[in-house]
Amino acid sequence: MSLDVAILGGAGLVGQVFIKMLDAHPTFRVKVVTGSRSAGKIYGRHVEWKIWGDMPEYVRGMEVAPTEYRYLKDVDLIFSALPSEEAKKIESYLVSRGMRVITNASTHRLDPDVPLIVPEVNASHLEAVIERYQDGFIVANPNCSTIILSLFLKPIYDEYGLDEVHVVTMQAVSGAGYPGNPSMEVMGNILPFIPREEEKLERETLKIFGEYKDGVFTNAVFRVKAQANRVPVIYGHTESILLRTSKEVEDLEELKKILLGFHGPPQEMGLHSAPGNPIHVVDGPRPQPRFDAFREKGMAVSVGRLKVYGDGWISAVIHGNNLVRGAAGGTILIAEYLTKALG
Amino acid sequence: MSLDVAILGGAGLVGQVFIKMLDAHPTFRVKVVTGSRSAGKIYGRHVEWKIWGDMPEYVRGMEVAPTEYRYLKDVDLIFSALPSEEAKKIESYLVSRGMRVITNASTHRLDPDVPLIVPEVNASHLEAVIERYQDGFIVANPNCSTIILSLFLKPIYDEYGLDEVHVVTMQAVSGAGYPGNPSMEVMGNILPFIPREEEKLERETLKIFGEYKDGVFTNAVFRVKAQANRVPVIYGHTESILLRTSKEVEDLEELKKILLGFHGPPQEMGLHSAPGNPIHVVDGPRPQPRFDAFREKGMAVSVGRLKVYGDGWISAVIHGNNLVRGAAGGTILIAEYLTKALG
Amino acid sequence: MSLDVAILGGAGLVGQVFIKMLDAHPTFRVKVVTGSRSAGKIYGRHVEWKIWGDMPEYVRGMEVAPTEYRYLKDVDLIFSALPSEEAKKIESYLVSRGMRVITNASTHRLDPDVPLIVPEVNASHLEAVIERYQDGFIVANPNCSTIILSLFLKPIYDEYGLDEVHVVTMQAVSGAGYPGNPSMEVMGNILPFIPREEEKLERETLKIFGEYKDGVFTNAVFRVKAQANRVPVIYGHTESILLRTSKEVEDLEELKKILLGFHGPPQEMGLHSAPGNPIHVVDGPRPQPRFDAFREKGMAVSVGRLKVYGDGWISAVIHGNNLVRGAAGGTILIAEYLTKALG
Amino acid sequence: MSLDVAILGGAGLVGQVFIKMLDAHPTFRVKVVTGSRSAGKIYGRHVEWKIWGDMPEYVRGMEVAPTEYRYLKDVDLIFSALPSEEAKKIESYLVSRGMRVITNASTHRLDPDVPLIVPEVNASHLEAVIERYQDGFIVANPNCSTIILSLFLKPIYDEYGLDEVHVVTMQAVSGAGYPGNPSMEVMGNILPFIPREEEKLERETLKIFGEYKDGVFTNAVFRVKAQANRVPVIYGHTESILLRTSKEVEDLEELKKILLGFHGPPQEMGLHSAPGNPIHVVDGPRPQPRFDAFREKGMAVSVGRLKVYGDGWISAVIHGNNLVRGAAGGTILIAEYLTKALG
Repeated sequence: MSLDVAILGGAGLVGQVFIKMLDAHPTFRVKVVTGSRSAGKIYGRHVEWKIWGDMPEYVRGMEVAPTEYRYLKDVDLIFSALPSEEAKKIESYLVSRGMRVITNASTHRLDPDVPLIVPEVNASHLEAVIERYQDGFIVANPNCSTIILSLFLKPIYDEYGLDEVHVVTMQAVSGAGYPGNPSMEVMGNILPFIPREEEKLERETLKIFGEYKDGVFTNAVFRVKAQANRVPVIYGHTESILLRTSKEVEDLEELKKILLGFHGPPQEMGLHSAPGNPIHVVDGPRPQPRFDAFREKGMAVSVGRLKVYGDGWISAVIHGNNLVRGAAGGTILIAEYLTKALG
Repeated sequence: MSLDVAILGGAGLVGQVFIKMLDAHPTFRVKVVTGSRSAGKIYGRHVEWKIWGDMPEYVRGMEVAPTEYRYLKDVDLIFSALPSEEAKKIESYLVSRGMRVITNASTHRLDPDVPLIVPEVNASHLEAVIERYQDGFIVANPNCSTIILSLFLKPIYDEYGLDEVHVVTMQAVSGAGYPGNPSMEVMGNILPFIPREEEKLERETLKIFGEYKDGVFTNAVFRVKAQANRVPVIYGHTESILLRTSKEVEDLEELKKILLGFHGPPQEMGLHSAPGNPIHVVDGPRPQPRFDAFREKGMAVSVGRLKVYGDGWISAVIHGNNLVRGAAGGTILIAEYLTKALG
Repeated sequence: MSLDVAILGGAGLVGQVFIKMLDAHPTFRVKVVTGSRSAGKIYGRHVEWKIWGDMPEYVRGMEVAPTEYRYLKDVDLIFSALPSEEAKKIESYLVSRGMRVITNASTHRLDPDVPLIVPEVNASHLEAVIERYQDGFIVANPNCSTIILSLFLKPIYDEYGLDEVHVVTMQAVSGAGYPGNPSMEVMGNILPFIPREEEKLERETLKIFGEYKDGVFTNAVFRVKAQANRVPVIYGHTESILLRTSKEVEDLEELKKILLGFHGPPQEMGLHSAPGNPIHVVDGPRPQPRFDAFREKGMAVSVGRLKVYGDGWISAVIHGNNLVRGAAGGTILIAEYLTKALG
Repeated sequence: MSLDVAILGGAGLVGQVFIKMLDAHPTFRVKVVTGSRSAGKIYGRHVEWKIWGDMPEYVRGMEVAPTEYRYLKDVDLIFSALPSEEAKKIESYLVSRGMRVITNASTHRLDPDVPLIVPEVNASHLEAVIERYQDGFIVANPNCSTIILSLFLKPIYDEYGLDEVHVVTMQAVSGAGYPGNPSMEVMGNILPFIPREEEKLERETLKIFGEYKDGVFTNAVFRVKAQANRVPVIYGHTESILLRTSKEVEDLEELKKILLGFHGPPQEMGLHSAPGNPIHVVDGPRPQPRFDAFREKGMAVSVGRLKVYGDGWISAVIHGNNLVRGAAGGTILIAEYLTKALG
């Protein structure tokens, strides 16, 4: 099967990762790329390429369309990399016209009818949209730091239960989009605040780990407390985690085995963008952005510095690629799951 | 009163801060500077100045002495900036010869007869050495991150009590001494591990907040869990804190007032190196190394991002100068207290 | 004597350095600070302080005025830190109303009636405005890299003459103003281009070293070729210089002596902001931004790595503070000269 | 044909790039890896991987040998990544035992019987060793910055002749090996000095562009003046060039065409590691380390900011990968040429 797709906000940083990852994709063909300032211009001439590698050939000659329904009505699926204010203006309207939107924008993540999906964690929530596939829908990709955290938490949640999760993030500047943080603000410095990031971590995680039943999403009941920092790193978010499980973790080796053995539907279904192992356990003074941000092409989360405190708490440092697993890659993986699930 | 002092390890990074801070000091006159590789050489010709400002005039012509008793026996007080292995070889011996050593080395911090002092927090522990002042003794300055943490915790401990403290550090490279971390290891990267740092935070804090009674130090009973990271910052350690108090903090403004009003013996006694306010409460996306590492000449701790969770936990981001308050400055402040207390 | 002054564009990066340097200035009292986005707001509440140190007390309560004549008509002297497009709109008009403008903007630097001044180099060009002091005028402060270069060239030009100057700059991000370069653009990277910078170096230098006679500025006749790079440094521009003198430099020590002995009118007149020595000759792997950007409060240029090739060419690395000597400080020094010269 | 090779100094930074580039190489099979501190240990367990990507499987189980003849005598070819002092001790001895050494060390580069080779520039110099192939020999890979410069100069030299070359380098920290520059020395800073680097650029270039005739290497006669800087970049050296040709360059477009059309023996012979185009001409504010260090797997040089001054001088900014084209990759390309040339 081959589906025609559109990328909304395709000139931005996340938009460029979509363009990169959909180059020669086995299922999705990019038919439309939209933008605001770049609308009406030729992508290859107007858009400055900001991410790793070179701009794919296929997009160079494409004319950037305005983000409007009439340019989108013929595609099968829409990937949205819009800023949240712009997403607010258009995404619901597109659904009202029967379109299928898989979005990286934060706008609708906590809407009562929008599944918030990390495919290895809660693919079953997609049932909510499969029911009304023909009518159009939004599926939301969570916040970047939340996705990385959720992948790490999932096998622990299943085995031990979760009571309290404390997370301190050290996030790369590419997470702020482009231009993002001025160089004077970040070079040789730490910014101990990222607008709305802590709330996203604290709330989205609970929806992801919650239930979908009888048309209603219910939150999970553990607590998440988050502190977010911006650090002078280009790619990859690091998170220092302290968490208390419901059932005490007694053995570090057993914990490692559970993390290493973790698989979800994307692995079982052999989805194109799925990492072979969603979680890599790394030894020594790791994970580090320089070495771990692009594990499995940026789709795997690296876990290191595991400690069992013996009083119910364990700690770890985790790392993931904010632009790939945390944004475009996670969104594409949702689409791959949905497409395969629908047959 | 004027005392002659020696600086052990005066060519290193912390040694240089001692030299800087003792330039024109009202009480202490530097008579001896020791070193290993630089022994026998003229300080101003041989030692490369690695910290802010220029090398003080007074030290330029001094010949660096080997770190041996015979070069030290005539001074009144010894400041040690030795690496821990070298401290192990010499500090106890100096005491056995009746000398007074105030050390930044980690070697003896947990020794049963060594007070581990942050003057605003537990100056009363110095009673242990005042009793045997003429016989010689060691007083230890705690780990840099621990000092910064302890200053922040003190007013909270006194008002609310402490139950559990979670701290994630983001530490400057100057904390690793010189040469310290290779540039390839740190630039654009995060190192999620600093050897022995987490243990220091977890143990030293409890000794500092413990009691000294009948010749015995007893640890405080709350719990500290620490995760230490090295970040590409030159000066200043940042710490993300989540803590649970014994008595719940109900009001953020009250908490701020308590932090702002905090004073200890150094302020009351008007010690030369004491900051006017040991704790600065900062608003907005602060504290930040660029703006806050040198508050009150590096002797004050900055506290920001205060949050009250309502379930017993509160969070904050704190920042302090690792080389000043966390090393040379803290050590000098101990000496100033001791000198004044002894009259 | 005391003069009332205004700072145009006082919320920007250079504007903040003006505000800092005019705190407690012996001659100039800041009466008006203007801005565009901040107009009508209280400086201390609205403007984020972006440079070293703290915001001076005197400016905190001031209301930012719009950059219009009616708010400026009562001051004696105007310092302009406006962006060049805004300078174009207002500076000439102010002169037409009889005002005296000393500007850091590039707009009028090459105008036939505007002196372009580095006080140690060509203070005599100010004769052009002293003649018409009561009528109002513009005096321009040169481009930051050009000022640093000119100070280094002056004693060489006087002693040996200049034939050809090749300069490669490595410029700090603060030179681009705020927000300036996005962090993703500069961190761990080199940008080999700064818009219009090379032309400024190539042209302005010749006007500065030219003559003013019979009301006409004539360019000097040597050649300058410039290549400008942006580097991940916060404060301080470094320049690698290769130059060919008219009369061959034969002796390195003589060259050093000439550089060290260099003084100009600001030193002779004892101007408040004048560095004791405009040129510092530094040994070893120097100058470096970390150590040399703030020599003599940022007003001196550091020169190192001097080499005499023996075929007419010599090379050097020079460094200066782009925001102080290269912008606000240079501009204030011009005003100090003018004020003193007028008695 | 398949040859057994050894890598001397295989645990260092350049050694690791050799190991990476020889993974699955069509001609060379790594049989021996030597080291000093790691001798006797298993590579995969003892050596920390410091460069991009993961440690190749083939080397993980290998035992590191001491750098001694008896461990090397059975291989066909030796690649040396030794530090220069160690190279001095062993390389000549290996030749005396009839071995073939292709070295990245600087020790023998200017020896009268050692060809100093950039295959696209002066492969013909290899005649010197082909004559005595069976007796053993050293061929030297030039200094990293020199290789990058030489590739750029070659087509210009052939078309216009060269008179004077001025080069200012901005070199990545990986060029200093590991641990190399301490982070405090380089972060947010520029070091305007790299030991012996300027002399290497000034001398090696002339040997490369010289002649080999009747057993004697004669230098080219143009002049090179170099200023070397270390900058906070991980991979890739940038060089600002100003040069005067013998025959004036009149047309920028013609110059670009000549650079773009440049090919040498490695391209004609289709050597495995040869870049398709040794020179890439890039537009806009380029080349930049972030985008250009890995062009053609790090084997191509990027050239941008070309300017024709009209008085005989032209300028450009060039960039190349110091570890690949400037070290291991250049050395391997020499070996590939030699192997093919010998049939």
